[in-house]
Amino acid sequence: MSYKIAIRSFKTLSYVGSYKKIRDRHIKTYCAAVIGAGYIAYKQSQSNKAEMKEIIQLKNYMAEPVTPVSHLEKTQNDMKTQVELLIMTIQAEFCRALEKEEDENAKFQVDRWIRKEGGGGITCVLQDGRVFEKAGVNISVVSGKLPPAAVQQMRTRGKNFEGKELPFFAAGVSAVIHPRNPMVPTIHFNYRYFEVQDNNGVQWWFGGGTDLTPYYLNEEDARHFHLTLKQACDSHDKSYYGRFKKWCDDYFSIPHRGERRGVGGIFFDDLDTPDQKSAFQFVTSCAEAVIPSYIPVVQKHKDEAYGYYERQWQLLRRGRYVEFNLIYDRGTKFGLFTPEARYESILMSLPLNAKWEYMHVPKPNSPEEKLMKVLQEPRDWVQFDQARASA
Amino acid sequence: MSYKIAIRSFKTLSYVGSYKKIRDRHIKTYCAAVIGAGYIAYKQSQSNKAEMKEIIQLKNYMAEPVTPVSHLEKTQNDMKTQVELLIMTIQAEFCRALEKEEDENAKFQVDRWIRKEGGGGITCVLQDGRVFEKAGVNISVVSGKLPPAAVQQMRTRGKNFEGKELPFFAAGVSAVIHPRNPMVPTIHFNYRYFEVQDNNGVQWWFGGGTDLTPYYLNEEDARHFHLTLKQACDSHDKSYYGRFKKWCDDYFSIPHRGERRGVGGIFFDDLDTPDQKSAFQFVTSCAEAVIPSYIPVVQKHKDEAYGYYERQWQLLRRGRYVEFNLIYDRGTKFGLFTPEARYESILMSLPLNAKWEYMHVPKPNSPEEKLMKVLQEPRDWVQFDQARASA
Repeated sequence: MSYKIAIRSFKTLSYVGSYKKIRDRHIKTYCAAVIGAGYIAYKQSQSNKAEMKEIIQLKNYMAEPVTPVSHLEKTQNDMKTQVELLIMTIQAEFCRALEKEEDENAKFQVDRWIRKEGGGGITCVLQDGRVFEKAGVNISVVSGKLPPAAVQQMRTRGKNFEGKELPFFAAGVSAVIHPRNPMVPTIHFNYRYFEVQDNNGVQWWFGGGTDLTPYYLNEEDARHFHLTLKQACDSHDKSYYGRFKKWCDDYFSIPHRGERRGVGGIFFDDLDTPDQKSAFQFVTSCAEAVIPSYIPVVQKHKDEAYGYYERQWQLLRRGRYVEFNLIYDRGTKFGLFTPEARYESILMSLPLNAKWEYMHVPKPNSPEEKLMKVLQEPRDWVQFDQARASA
Repeated sequence: MSYKIAIRSFKTLSYVGSYKKIRDRHIKTYCAAVIGAGYIAYKQSQSNKAEMKEIIQLKNYMAEPVTPVSHLEKTQNDMKTQVELLIMTIQAEFCRALEKEEDENAKFQVDRWIRKEGGGGITCVLQDGRVFEKAGVNISVVSGKLPPAAVQQMRTRGKNFEGKELPFFAAGVSAVIHPRNPMVPTIHFNYRYFEVQDNNGVQWWFGGGTDLTPYYLNEEDARHFHLTLKQACDSHDKSYYGRFKKWCDDYFSIPHRGERRGVGGIFFDDLDTPDQKSAFQFVTSCAEAVIPSYIPVVQKHKDEAYGYYERQWQLLRRGRYVEFNLIYDRGTKFGLFTPEARYESILMSLPLNAKWEYMHVPKPNSPEEKLMKVLQEPRDWVQFDQARASA
């Protein structure tokens, strides 16, 4: 049990992964299908044992898991194993759903990396596609001792641990998708699990969220997105959506501009109630809601017409995305200040292109100004929907 | 004397300026020539008084000074006045030198802004020119009480002041020039003066620096740039260039990438020796060295041929510039976290366009790789030059 432990951190999870130097590393690009097929064939050769149904289906993942399969198979009831298998599945399903919307030759580049001090990750990036300008989907599964800087980051966020150099385990999935068409919004999600051991024993918790950043506001899309997340929340706790929607609006804020990053979604941290299994099931529901919340929106708008003007506006808003991620996002900051961090996996969230114009102000009554109003004053999308339905 | 005071801060100087809300503000765009001519005509009508030679030449500035002219005229021996007149002159001379390299219709937009709590600034931006993609030259002259956050920023950098809510005065000039042609480097400079009053009296100091960020390394340019700065330093103190060159390499560093931002230059802070007048003369020399260090490099390369590939590399390096400014630059951070900051003046340093590619690595032995080597291991440009001269 000594390594069942926990860090408290934002989003950082997928960022804790560190390794020596990018040019020294051994990144292996796996073809999931090939590995999967080989592994399954091998397993099938062992005939129909009762454990057969328990076999970890490598073909379903983007690469070989970070933790050795033999260990995962032996520890299937351990929450650490369940989380690793969940994030592997979420990563692969999301990458495949995105590839389905793309041209045939646009595929995710898969980089599996190993962290010197324990664990590693799988970073999948699709860049310069026809539909997706930059899409990054990352998982990481890391463990070790918590560096002092990380302890401080945790403490400033209110969690107190006793002891120095705390053993921890952290696993999570994180994605940012920047589509090419300005009519398709950017999505971000991140779900993570932590264990930290201090003098008082092991503490665990979940964190995460999903949020949408449109360039042009489509109210139906925003409602669809929020309702899908609300349904995922409601089946676990009727109070979750309201609380986590507000938390999201508060977190994804760019104070110096007086704007939110987008139309929000849900965001939570430090979730350790009502019990470990229920919390895991809730996080599973949230992660599974990503595809139905987003892919229909991509399908609806990916071939819509747009011109130079709309592209320029999208690039300006991507500049704001960069501002949020580099100045305010605690996960990015925590990741970059972690020694030996894999910065390419942290910064995959940045758009391929971004723009900063001095003193840009949208024209009055333009679609651009309409978006700005919603970013300045977040709306209650679900209530809005109910009011509309009863009208 | 109660308002002769001082903040200690990096570069922040030009960023302290704050005012209510961008859309509520009254920005007045001045035509310096018109104001200047009018003012001078009025003054001339007062005939040839002895003070005539003392008249502040408005026509030499980009806009009316922040401090009323009548007050400046009465306090010409005060260091605060001398600094304000210096930065006004430096701003105008640099803007005109840049405009001279541009097409006729590309002119600086001049925004004079007033800070509610005291002082204000003049922000000049030339955007989307043929030669300069984005050029920002800002001055600010601000005073008031130091907010608690600023005090903390000061303390973390080693200066201790006794008291709460310290009265301060801060004035400085700051510029970032992003040319369009990738063969022309980006330049940044910033020179500033502070006074803070605490329980022990008034403390003053100067800070500043000039640094160069090439996209393609031209060794002659780098040597010319460093030698020009060295000459400015050497005429005041033979130890300055060596110390301030190293300080610059250390400061403009992007730790997560193991790179410097560019080929450096000079950087110093907290300069309060040997005496106020000498320190002012040194800073004047540095500020006056900007044009001869940079404009010849612009002239040499601004019409050089380049293609898509070089432009893409420039955009990637501009992404690194954004990373440094938003993650590490203390001036930017201090500015953005100051309540009511004029963020458009702080963020004018960001390029018009920037790019982030996942896992971009320059080809072996390419000009791009040659640049990276110098960014990873700063060179002693002056020694290099001397060795070459004696060869």
